[in-house]
Amino acid sequence: MSVVDLSSVNAFIPGQVELDPHEARMVEQRTRLLGPAYRLMYQKPLHFVRGEGVWLYDADGRRYLDTYNNVVSLGHCHPDVVEAITRQVATLCTNTRYLHETILKLAEGLLSTVQSDLSHMMLTCSGSEANDLAYRIAKVRTGGTGVIITETAYHGITDAVSQFSPTLGTAVPLGAHVRTVAAPAAYRSGPNVAERFTRDVEAAIADLKRHGIQPAMLIVDSIFTSDGILSEEPGFLKGAVEAIRKAGGIFVADEVQPGFGRTGSHMWGFQRHGVDPDIVTLGKPMGNGQPIAGLLTRHDVVEKFGNNSRYFNTFAGNAVSCAAAAAVLKVIRRDRIMDNARDVGAYLLERVSALRSRHDCLGHVRGAGLFVAADIVSDRETQANDRARTTRVVNAMRDNGVLISACGKDHNILKIRPPLIFSRENVDLFVDVLDEALAV
Amino acid sequence: MSVVDLSSVNAFIPGQVELDPHEARMVEQRTRLLGPAYRLMYQKPLHFVRGEGVWLYDADGRRYLDTYNNVVSLGHCHPDVVEAITRQVATLCTNTRYLHETILKLAEGLLSTVQSDLSHMMLTCSGSEANDLAYRIAKVRTGGTGVIITETAYHGITDAVSQFSPTLGTAVPLGAHVRTVAAPAAYRSGPNVAERFTRDVEAAIADLKRHGIQPAMLIVDSIFTSDGILSEEPGFLKGAVEAIRKAGGIFVADEVQPGFGRTGSHMWGFQRHGVDPDIVTLGKPMGNGQPIAGLLTRHDVVEKFGNNSRYFNTFAGNAVSCAAAAAVLKVIRRDRIMDNARDVGAYLLERVSALRSRHDCLGHVRGAGLFVAADIVSDRETQANDRARTTRVVNAMRDNGVLISACGKDHNILKIRPPLIFSRENVDLFVDVLDEALAV
Repeated sequence: MSVVDLSSVNAFIPGQVELDPHEARMVEQRTRLLGPAYRLMYQKPLHFVRGEGVWLYDADGRRYLDTYNNVVSLGHCHPDVVEAITRQVATLCTNTRYLHETILKLAEGLLSTVQSDLSHMMLTCSGSEANDLAYRIAKVRTGGTGVIITETAYHGITDAVSQFSPTLGTAVPLGAHVRTVAAPAAYRSGPNVAERFTRDVEAAIADLKRHGIQPAMLIVDSIFTSDGILSEEPGFLKGAVEAIRKAGGIFVADEVQPGFGRTGSHMWGFQRHGVDPDIVTLGKPMGNGQPIAGLLTRHDVVEKFGNNSRYFNTFAGNAVSCAAAAAVLKVIRRDRIMDNARDVGAYLLERVSALRSRHDCLGHVRGAGLFVAADIVSDRETQANDRARTTRVVNAMRDNGVLISACGKDHNILKIRPPLIFSRENVDLFVDVLDEALAV
Repeated sequence: MSVVDLSSVNAFIPGQVELDPHEARMVEQRTRLLGPAYRLMYQKPLHFVRGEGVWLYDADGRRYLDTYNNVVSLGHCHPDVVEAITRQVATLCTNTRYLHETILKLAEGLLSTVQSDLSHMMLTCSGSEANDLAYRIAKVRTGGTGVIITETAYHGITDAVSQFSPTLGTAVPLGAHVRTVAAPAAYRSGPNVAERFTRDVEAAIADLKRHGIQPAMLIVDSIFTSDGILSEEPGFLKGAVEAIRKAGGIFVADEVQPGFGRTGSHMWGFQRHGVDPDIVTLGKPMGNGQPIAGLLTRHDVVEKFGNNSRYFNTFAGNAVSCAAAAAVLKVIRRDRIMDNARDVGAYLLERVSALRSRHDCLGHVRGAGLFVAADIVSDRETQANDRARTTRVVNAMRDNGVLISACGKDHNILKIRPPLIFSRENVDLFVDVLDEALAV
């Protein structure tokens, strides 16, 4: 098994490049004050002082096209979100043990986007906490502990969730109750991805049971971001969802990455697959930067947990975070953000795909809405992954003012994930810079 | 063993009291939209629409003296924090993978308040995440998994942390690797609390080892909030800290409750005890409402975890949360908030203590700074706890416009924990209302 450590993709490694004195000093301070666990992106780290729309500005006033940060899904410093936070923070910021309108409005809004049996919303401060809570609920609901994930999954960083997040690297052990299945990558493993994925999940269930472990949940990022953004052949989840339910477990759709309209066609990634999750977890773009995350679930799934264990999370559901999230939801609808993600996303996919005729290193290209992935390969026939070139491409683009990153087991897949307000003009600039970088 | 379920203290129970139509509708919406896990405070829930300083205002314009909410430690909607958030949210909100000044400034400020060997700050979104991260670090550092806590401890709600938070109730099982020790309550168990606490921790270590479990950490809220606010005889932690270290474990001071100057005499509760923790976890008042928490630790404690596992938490350390926390730290210093906590806290303690001569139900009274506890008893001699009367007192005060709550194994200890800007005039009002409620 290869060592998987996504935390080192595109990371700054001290001593490799020369830094400006000001940045060198900040890097030194970071190492001293934040310690060894933190990493900066890019071979030459960036120091941003301002953001606006799709642009980030560094301390020298240079602007960068942000084609990476999915948290600020409506763009940096979106005026409606800024206004909602500004107004609420000056008015009231309390917790869920008092009545407050905004959390109810937010719940109504979010629950109206999913199938009707998902009737409850619960809030957390981070996607990690959301997946952690989903696991606690799954254990109480099913009486089991077993978890099934894909081989390069990432679901978060709490102690429990890190045990089912293999991308944290081999230094973070998977739980004894965790089984991984191959990523459902149609473009690599050929047709019948649905059958294969179902069979793999069934085998994982059987293996858990053989070890005396009752399955609690199958959890997948419904666009398989860290597995390489597997947007193709939607529909392949059905058999696996049936299998986990038949085994007494539940299905959790982790929508931290594909959710809130990124795929253009649907508000949530699982809807592309035509499945009804037992729990949907939400995160990153939910407050356009404000720390808020949560989950949607059915009454019967959370009933026992809710009645016996209760749930209170001091900051989660505070009036300011809820105001930010309610503003995000309003803007997504009012400004037809999903339409933009679909239209501009299709254009982005077309333009990136067209670069294949000019660059042999560009392997398979795929995407859904404004989430596009492109493999960098040393040989198109064998699809041999080229990690070193990927790193060069990502850093060359950074040097030319465009931000992206990489993902996948071999760190060779360009992760193209701009704010959902990206324009065709932004795509043109992006493609020009990518074109140049691919020639490096 | 008694069933401990702090989540039910002062909780609203549907059907017990009649509500106004508007609130009844909101309660119905909450039940429908948020599900069975959420609970409202007080027999008659409150619906706040505005906060300012020590005051919360309900929808009818009635004001309540907030003697409970420790998150807004500088008072509701503190102008400096509001301004810091307002400015930053309109400028930039990114993550720790880019360089940014404010996180460095915050780290410098926080680390300057502790002993010099605590040299690194790491950030999370909640106190739960902070304690969860402390546990992950402790496991890597020590090679152990065992956790020692006090019998009515609360450290948070992630899957791992809930396993060492007995106040979540008996429906949430403690981990097989967790041992509890009696709360170090000098006023109940007599003198020699230090010796007894040390002996109990040593016995817990021995029991863990007897079960083949290597101790990872002793973690205590250094003012033992949920054990009943045990502020007396500071210094009793020393022997226990030596014991856990001798056994190969580390000592974690959970400062989510006593931290940021609440005790008046010290910035952190552990400093009252003259001990040097290996990890200090921070939370609630850190951003005066903005979701930010974290930990301070030594380099050698986090070195292996940092180098091998890395740490990235999307929202934690974002520029807005850091701006809020930096503003909190600035105000604590500039406005001599700790001096106020000490002076007004002493006055509060004196005034509440004096009520003992008028009310036989008022048992032991104790406190440190603006954190005061008062037992409600049915018999002072035997110190028999009176949970029913405690509930009446808390709800009578709420009806008369003053907010407090209760804690302790028997839910009979008044938890008096106002914002640190509380004035003597606020104390006078508080004591008048308490005086009346104790007569109910």
